[in-house]
Amino acid sequence: MSNEKDFVKEVTNIDEDFAQWYTDIVRKAELADYTDTKGCIAIRPYGYAIWENIQNYMDKKFKEAGVKNAYFPVLIPEGLLQKEKDHIEGFAPEVAWVTEVGEEKLDERLCIRPTSETIITTMYSKWLSSWRDLPFVYNQWCNVLRWEKETRPFLRSREFLWQEGHTIHETADEAKERTLQMLNIYQDLLEDFLAIPTIKGEKTEKEKFAGAENTYTIETMMYDGKALQSATSHYFGQNFTKPFEVKFQNRDGKEEYAYQTSWGSTTRLIGAIIMAHGDNRGLKLPPKVAPIQVLVVPIAMHKEGVEEKATEICNRLKNKFRVDGDFRTNVTPGVKFNDSELKGIPVRLEIGPRDIENGECILVRRDTAEKITVKLDELEEKIETLLEDIQKNMYNVCKERLEAKTTIAHTLEEFEANINKEQGFIKAMWCGDEACENKIKELTTAKSRCMPFEQEHLDDKCVVCGKPADKMVVWGRQY
Amino acid sequence: MSNEKDFVKEVTNIDEDFAQWYTDIVRKAELADYTDTKGCIAIRPYGYAIWENIQNYMDKKFKEAGVKNAYFPVLIPEGLLQKEKDHIEGFAPEVAWVTEVGEEKLDERLCIRPTSETIITTMYSKWLSSWRDLPFVYNQWCNVLRWEKETRPFLRSREFLWQEGHTIHETADEAKERTLQMLNIYQDLLEDFLAIPTIKGEKTEKEKFAGAENTYTIETMMYDGKALQSATSHYFGQNFTKPFEVKFQNRDGKEEYAYQTSWGSTTRLIGAIIMAHGDNRGLKLPPKVAPIQVLVVPIAMHKEGVEEKATEICNRLKNKFRVDGDFRTNVTPGVKFNDSELKGIPVRLEIGPRDIENGECILVRRDTAEKITVKLDELEEKIETLLEDIQKNMYNVCKERLEAKTTIAHTLEEFEANINKEQGFIKAMWCGDEACENKIKELTTAKSRCMPFEQEHLDDKCVVCGKPADKMVVWGRQY
Repeated sequence: MSNEKDFVKEVTNIDEDFAQWYTDIVRKAELADYTDTKGCIAIRPYGYAIWENIQNYMDKKFKEAGVKNAYFPVLIPEGLLQKEKDHIEGFAPEVAWVTEVGEEKLDERLCIRPTSETIITTMYSKWLSSWRDLPFVYNQWCNVLRWEKETRPFLRSREFLWQEGHTIHETADEAKERTLQMLNIYQDLLEDFLAIPTIKGEKTEKEKFAGAENTYTIETMMYDGKALQSATSHYFGQNFTKPFEVKFQNRDGKEEYAYQTSWGSTTRLIGAIIMAHGDNRGLKLPPKVAPIQVLVVPIAMHKEGVEEKATEICNRLKNKFRVDGDFRTNVTPGVKFNDSELKGIPVRLEIGPRDIENGECILVRRDTAEKITVKLDELEEKIETLLEDIQKNMYNVCKERLEAKTTIAHTLEEFEANINKEQGFIKAMWCGDEACENKIKELTTAKSRCMPFEQEHLDDKCVVCGKPADKMVVWGRQY
Repeated sequence: MSNEKDFVKEVTNIDEDFAQWYTDIVRKAELADYTDTKGCIAIRPYGYAIWENIQNYMDKKFKEAGVKNAYFPVLIPEGLLQKEKDHIEGFAPEVAWVTEVGEEKLDERLCIRPTSETIITTMYSKWLSSWRDLPFVYNQWCNVLRWEKETRPFLRSREFLWQEGHTIHETADEAKERTLQMLNIYQDLLEDFLAIPTIKGEKTEKEKFAGAENTYTIETMMYDGKALQSATSHYFGQNFTKPFEVKFQNRDGKEEYAYQTSWGSTTRLIGAIIMAHGDNRGLKLPPKVAPIQVLVVPIAMHKEGVEEKATEICNRLKNKFRVDGDFRTNVTPGVKFNDSELKGIPVRLEIGPRDIENGECILVRRDTAEKITVKLDELEEKIETLLEDIQKNMYNVCKERLEAKTTIAHTLEEFEANINKEQGFIKAMWCGDEACENKIKELTTAKSRCMPFEQEHLDDKCVVCGKPADKMVVWGRQY
């Protein structure tokens, strides 16, 4: 556990050691820190403010889509967890167990939720009686725990924050539609809000969620060409509703098991933002999710009228943007510039005595480092346009990288060569056999990301075995 | 565990069995339900929507007061919990321990946070170095677990949701000021938002938080005259910052331990709303916190134009209020009226063919059952005034009860007689001796609620021992 006080200002070069660069950004931009609880992080205010903005965006979209929030217990009795066989097999190895309370041993162990299908489905079985009650479209914002062996802040933390939606429906079609509806909200979040292009598709049998019929995913590419699974949505059919007896009287007066979905996204999205957009100067936040969109930095603050003018501009801009001012007296403007870049603030506004005389100020873009002189009476409209521009530009930069680092492979040799050169995504045909998937993983450590909804016909045969293949799969190494 | 399907519609009489009435309301108004995790509840969407409104109110006030949200681990290593002696003594008996993960035993037990002073103070020690860094004014919205022997939904649930604020400061004065500042926000929440009058004061030595120097509290009175501690704010001095070594270089260049506070409020507030305002017809929600402020109920919905008009009014009012419509076709308007009252919706809007003809509708107040005929073109302004009226009236009803059920006692006999008659609050002088406090508890089961900030001089001597006394204490039985 290293100490904040020991930080050196410098950030590791992004192209030399991406992993160390990532850790540097997380800690030096004060997004999160390690704790005495091994594998668990403390999310610091600046990091949490990013999560709050993500939550606000999603919660609004969810509510527009008819989702209601609720809350279910963090502890799940062992007996409940074991009711669905695939589910317990998938989660058992990484579950934390409460066995004692005060001085007493418990009769039955309680696990800390790794996900809440079992406890929520149990409650649904109590609450459901007729088709008229359906659908239940509930979501909870909460913490979950999965005891990962290797952890990384945000990306793979033993405890993380997330939302988990759980729905039950009268028909399979309605449930399937809901699965895709929520996946589209995730895609909008990634593309429109976080400025990260996505590939949307279905997971293979091997990669799907423990207990699901189908798992749909939003895949994104990070700076180093590796993939990050950014959100998933599952169709369960009746896999849980049968063992948990979630029954209703249908329109024909007959008993039927409900059709179920779940969908989730987590604080790992903060990791996605860092790794998709950051550079050697630090974090780079898309304006829509940035806790501070504009940082006002007074130049020569000791000169008469500068602090007052900078304060006035701060207050004026706060009506329209998320604004902060850096009025520290014990550091130079140069330090403030560096800090604003390290923290990824989209626009820096510099104002000194000369600018005030001329009725103008300087805006500096975080994404391109471009400096723009702007008349003070045009500030609001200029900043608004600038923020839109930055948001678009950041998306385009990622989009270009995604395209540049996505290649096609017709043979295993091509596959290996491409992934070792670019470490990006490989598009290749697949016969549907898990053995071929395993072979690719053994050879290249790449996994199937998904079978994209937007299929392309690259070839007639499987990239591994050469047998007939009609599925195009996107492959990549992953976080 | 009883089943939703077995519900009878009737609610137990509030004056016959208040405890059973409470449980009926919690379950029949679909606020919460029991779960397979003993002592833990599921908060259903209608109950959770109340919590969300409370959260939104508080979070806004917090941010205006300079509070930043953050997040710390749910699991706390045993070693950390034991660093502050009073604290571990207070919480150890009700702490749940994680001892196993997957198939492995842990070397050190981890407790699920009953509160987060220890883990947060540890992080503060890493992050603090100079007086320039201070204050830290952080808050987290999260779940906590305390293994209560007897549980009741919302009031005393093993797991509950809350916010816990934790701050450190350069001076004792600044910390004390923060403690009271946050207490005032709680008071505003209770009085202005939840329409519940409060008594604000300091806890006695015996009743204060484990590890605190001073505990301040917001006390409220429920329908049956019992007290509910509704929020607390603690001043710790350096009790935690010394053992946890939260040091900083002060303005004189010397090392100093920071001064600390914490303050919290929980989902128990939902219990307060139920028990302060409810009646024999069900829940009664103050308009400001009500998830649905106006319920539109069409009368004779099969008649031409009724459903359309009701829908139109719903959509129109949604621009200004939280509105829902009850368009069920399988129940009578009478059932809808009952349900709207059970769910405590402040205003019901009834509209049928005759009303439409006359260009009017009927508004029914939940608090007084009064019916008011209103012209459709005046709806918005009438509803706005009505909601304000209801909010005020609900506060006044509680205020009158609080005053009627608060009595003064000069002797122990008077004390006993009063509390057994009214079961309200007793004001009495106290010498400051814990033995006298214990005596009152033994005799009457009442505890000291607080030493109110607004002191009155009732007498010169302690109500128990007759020795000189200058503190007026409010006493009461409690939830």
